[in-house]
Amino acid sequence: MKKIGVLTSGGDSPGMNAAIRSVVRKAIYHDLEVYGIYNGYQGLMDGNIKQLDLGSVGDIIQRGGTVLHTARCEEFKTDEGQNKGIEQLKRIGIEGLVVIGGDGSFRGAEKLTQKGYPCIGVPGTIDNDIPGTDFTIGFDTALNTVIEAIDKVRDTATSHERTYVVEVMGRHAGDIALWAGLADGAESILIPEQPTDFNDVIERLKRGQERGKKHSIIIVAEGVGSGFEFGKRIEEATNMDTRVTILGHVQRGGSPTANDRVLASRLGAHAVDLLLEGKSGRMVGIQNNKLVDHDILEILDQRHEIDLDMYKLSQELSI
Amino acid sequence: MKKIGVLTSGGDSPGMNAAIRSVVRKAIYHDLEVYGIYNGYQGLMDGNIKQLDLGSVGDIIQRGGTVLHTARCEEFKTDEGQNKGIEQLKRIGIEGLVVIGGDGSFRGAEKLTQKGYPCIGVPGTIDNDIPGTDFTIGFDTALNTVIEAIDKVRDTATSHERTYVVEVMGRHAGDIALWAGLADGAESILIPEQPTDFNDVIERLKRGQERGKKHSIIIVAEGVGSGFEFGKRIEEATNMDTRVTILGHVQRGGSPTANDRVLASRLGAHAVDLLLEGKSGRMVGIQNNKLVDHDILEILDQRHEIDLDMYKLSQELSI
Amino acid sequence: MKKIGVLTSGGDSPGMNAAIRSVVRKAIYHDLEVYGIYNGYQGLMDGNIKQLDLGSVGDIIQRGGTVLHTARCEEFKTDEGQNKGIEQLKRIGIEGLVVIGGDGSFRGAEKLTQKGYPCIGVPGTIDNDIPGTDFTIGFDTALNTVIEAIDKVRDTATSHERTYVVEVMGRHAGDIALWAGLADGAESILIPEQPTDFNDVIERLKRGQERGKKHSIIIVAEGVGSGFEFGKRIEEATNMDTRVTILGHVQRGGSPTANDRVLASRLGAHAVDLLLEGKSGRMVGIQNNKLVDHDILEILDQRHEIDLDMYKLSQELSI
Amino acid sequence: MKKIGVLTSGGDSPGMNAAIRSVVRKAIYHDLEVYGIYNGYQGLMDGNIKQLDLGSVGDIIQRGGTVLHTARCEEFKTDEGQNKGIEQLKRIGIEGLVVIGGDGSFRGAEKLTQKGYPCIGVPGTIDNDIPGTDFTIGFDTALNTVIEAIDKVRDTATSHERTYVVEVMGRHAGDIALWAGLADGAESILIPEQPTDFNDVIERLKRGQERGKKHSIIIVAEGVGSGFEFGKRIEEATNMDTRVTILGHVQRGGSPTANDRVLASRLGAHAVDLLLEGKSGRMVGIQNNKLVDHDILEILDQRHEIDLDMYKLSQELSI
Repeated sequence: MKKIGVLTSGGDSPGMNAAIRSVVRKAIYHDLEVYGIYNGYQGLMDGNIKQLDLGSVGDIIQRGGTVLHTARCEEFKTDEGQNKGIEQLKRIGIEGLVVIGGDGSFRGAEKLTQKGYPCIGVPGTIDNDIPGTDFTIGFDTALNTVIEAIDKVRDTATSHERTYVVEVMGRHAGDIALWAGLADGAESILIPEQPTDFNDVIERLKRGQERGKKHSIIIVAEGVGSGFEFGKRIEEATNMDTRVTILGHVQRGGSPTANDRVLASRLGAHAVDLLLEGKSGRMVGIQNNKLVDHDILEILDQRHEIDLDMYKLSQELSI
Repeated sequence: MKKIGVLTSGGDSPGMNAAIRSVVRKAIYHDLEVYGIYNGYQGLMDGNIKQLDLGSVGDIIQRGGTVLHTARCEEFKTDEGQNKGIEQLKRIGIEGLVVIGGDGSFRGAEKLTQKGYPCIGVPGTIDNDIPGTDFTIGFDTALNTVIEAIDKVRDTATSHERTYVVEVMGRHAGDIALWAGLADGAESILIPEQPTDFNDVIERLKRGQERGKKHSIIIVAEGVGSGFEFGKRIEEATNMDTRVTILGHVQRGGSPTANDRVLASRLGAHAVDLLLEGKSGRMVGIQNNKLVDHDILEILDQRHEIDLDMYKLSQELSI
Repeated sequence: MKKIGVLTSGGDSPGMNAAIRSVVRKAIYHDLEVYGIYNGYQGLMDGNIKQLDLGSVGDIIQRGGTVLHTARCEEFKTDEGQNKGIEQLKRIGIEGLVVIGGDGSFRGAEKLTQKGYPCIGVPGTIDNDIPGTDFTIGFDTALNTVIEAIDKVRDTATSHERTYVVEVMGRHAGDIALWAGLADGAESILIPEQPTDFNDVIERLKRGQERGKKHSIIIVAEGVGSGFEFGKRIEEATNMDTRVTILGHVQRGGSPTANDRVLASRLGAHAVDLLLEGKSGRMVGIQNNKLVDHDILEILDQRHEIDLDMYKLSQELSI
Repeated sequence: MKKIGVLTSGGDSPGMNAAIRSVVRKAIYHDLEVYGIYNGYQGLMDGNIKQLDLGSVGDIIQRGGTVLHTARCEEFKTDEGQNKGIEQLKRIGIEGLVVIGGDGSFRGAEKLTQKGYPCIGVPGTIDNDIPGTDFTIGFDTALNTVIEAIDKVRDTATSHERTYVVEVMGRHAGDIALWAGLADGAESILIPEQPTDFNDVIERLKRGQERGKKHSIIIVAEGVGSGFEFGKRIEEATNMDTRVTILGHVQRGGSPTANDRVLASRLGAHAVDLLLEGKSGRMVGIQNNKLVDHDILEILDQRHEIDLDMYKLSQELSI
């Protein structure tokens, strides 16, 4: 293998730039030529491709977002779209690809692999919802963004009983909500993986109130419902003044944390190593603190599981 | 004067602790005894009052919120309530008060002054909506909280045209929205002091889109309307994907900025100086970079004005 | 077991408060009485001990430092000192202890265990130098403090060739230096676990310079030598303008990261569980993402190992 | 005037990018062509000049450093060097210049003005040491960087009496030290504008110690001497454990604060207005909260004054 490509696809996450940098530098370290494919699979089909050198990835390790941009691309789901992309790879002579993104991105990687272009997937999403890896690139940063916001909410004066509802990202996965709730001592954490026991939420609020607690924090993963709706219901049920924060895309940005940068650097380099070893159709990950790789098809068949011990702990600590 | 009191009242703001600290230390510097009144005017009526020494205000200069807490208090608006408060002042021998808060708080201070208990008001609110001072304690911190959030929104990948609507605090005053918009290069800034020209918002968005701009940011002061409503209307009018962030009470917390701490320290100390000079019924402030003081009654009669030159500049720079 | 105690000892680290909170709440969850011992072993001997309830640990999860304070204590290394401490435990009826700190603290815990007072150690130190756990409480926060500082250094204009030397904590362990270097793309990382190849440092700097690189960052763990000394030697050897940053105790503070708070919450609760199971003389830890516990004596006999794969990766990526 | 140029020169400061953006956008708003001159006066002589459009300054308002880079340039101090620069201006047809930087940069601007190329200076430096403006671009950001570092130092456990010495930037101006000291409640603040009373430093430390104060913070502007030297002397004189932090160039970077961005936006736009009004050889500034402009020659003749009232206040509050 002499020439490889790298692209980012799907929703961006903090640390993607650190992963790109690692892929580029590790490739150059092994005397490979490395090409950046801009705008994900759309750019692959359009031939929006440039060779990258050490300088191209200078001063990006600390930046949120992705210098390669991403794009949604319906066309690449078709055979025709994939062949267009392969034309571009042929034109330049790119023999393998590193695809940084979520499960949608990995489907494309799997298709290219089947058509003779070995791909390695690198899990990048703030949701931490990809099986086969304990952590995804961006999760740690999003989590810290959430807790910094909640810390500020905590500061505001303990003037009269007040409940704060914070809606965080997570359509199908409650990891951000669960970790943030544990890290910030939330009274209740509502996640899609667990049935929502609204009575328990109210119970805990009332218990806190009786104990003289001035403020309570409820964290709601967006997959469970609207923060505003919960705010209204809580206000009706408790008569406490209730305020709502919807962080939205604030959670997708920010300079990546040390952990996300290190994880991204390790996973990106590992992906290059696998390509050099002749592997294909694999997703790299970190499990039990070790670098691993899995068949992408198996990953796509599995479901990410939330840590129920941590959920239980969060309930025990928020008595 | 031998004994003075200090209380915080109304909504809390970052820097109130620095102001308390300054009042206490400046008072002790001048050999006064100084008493902390907890929970605002409610605590005054209840006699929730403790003497403060240098150690009581140790390690609070950097904390959000207020160690004296605040509370709403309807009863203190009545003659009877005020007399209850005065009973407590008499009991301890407190001869003058520093009241840190917004205009509601200053009304109470004015009443006490009229009844023979000289008060000095210190403007503390994130909204920057108090006349007689160019800046209020907490405004700079809230502003930086807002721009840090918007910076993160900016990071997220320039994947496809997307519009971000950020709703910020400001029921009657657009200062947070205006300054944050200028500091973050927002496309449009909607503030209560100016008519909302929705067509202009849409015009600017379309112009940016044509120029190839990937994302646009609209800042809406809560007094103008709901961020969600604007988000929906923009999506309908432009067909662009639109995402909404509601920062809510996140804006009220956080460690105060250097500016807020310095401002709070200066205003708190100045308030003590005025009490010692025998003044009463005054609010301290900073105008044209100088410490000033005004009659509280005059302040209550005026309206804070937004800086229209800055508003014009924000429009010129967001072409 | 009906009554347990908790203390922090040795150098403080961010997340200790989250650990204390978790111990207290988990204990109360299990209907135990829990006592806070102030100022470490010194406070134990002095009987500086107070019962803690849910409110005592309110609003501390996000604070750096430790609300229980710490102190050095030579006397507790003696039999006499230990017996004094045991007198106090007897007086109150405390039957078991959770000791949060580093290896010095664990020696005391071991002694108490031998004398019939079961102790569980919780690893809290920013250095990440304790065997038997992949991460210690505080390491992640210190790391992020370091990279935020280096990120700022990176920002300063690429005006002329300049080398920045950043000295970070780590007398015997290079973990902070290594992780920060990898997370920030440092040119060279000098750690106590590896021989310092000064020629290689100079080589890399010159190679970067030839490639047109404007600035280079060298990270030095304090155990390797003084940042100032290295700065001087580099300036002499390369003729490049060299600037030095010594972060010092800045690395010991700050609000703990999400990771440190979650780790602290899990380890603190696990320690209580072990006491309830009748275990003693154990240190809890996290290894391969699972909660574990080890005999303290074994821990004290081992040495923490640095991750050499990560060190190698850092060198490959900084070509 | 149809074409103007903009350059940054001297040490960079956070907010310079916001100033560049404002110059570019305000110029385009007035239908001017605007050219970016890279690497300061060196780039001017070398013809390192590119036209800038709205897109060129997209997503830079929040970045530290300067996208136009800066460089020292001895040659431009000579008549010959200046003529080389003018050749380049002629070649492109640039009729006026905005020069963002410190006093060294303004000397060059003055020379160009005298030779028929009107220049307007914009004060950008973290030191806040330029007369004719109450604040320089970058000062507020540097200040907040310093206090965030000191806040972390404060967190570390109050284990035994300890003194922290923090050396901050300021060779000739003590503004950073003074404001940071006031904002962080430092025990002593050593600045070049005031004689260093070492006995007073020791006095205050001992007084704090007697009062039971656990930690004390001494801020030293680099112009007064080395933080390490002071640390040693304090340790000798008090026998307290003393730790030193040297922030160095960390203070020059970071995302600019809201204040610095707003100030930069206002000053940059004002400079363009002045060029359009036919003014030359002026420096813009903010005084008493109003936009002003002064003759550059007068500015170069004056000295920045520190605010002695604030210095006095810092001493009164650190009793």
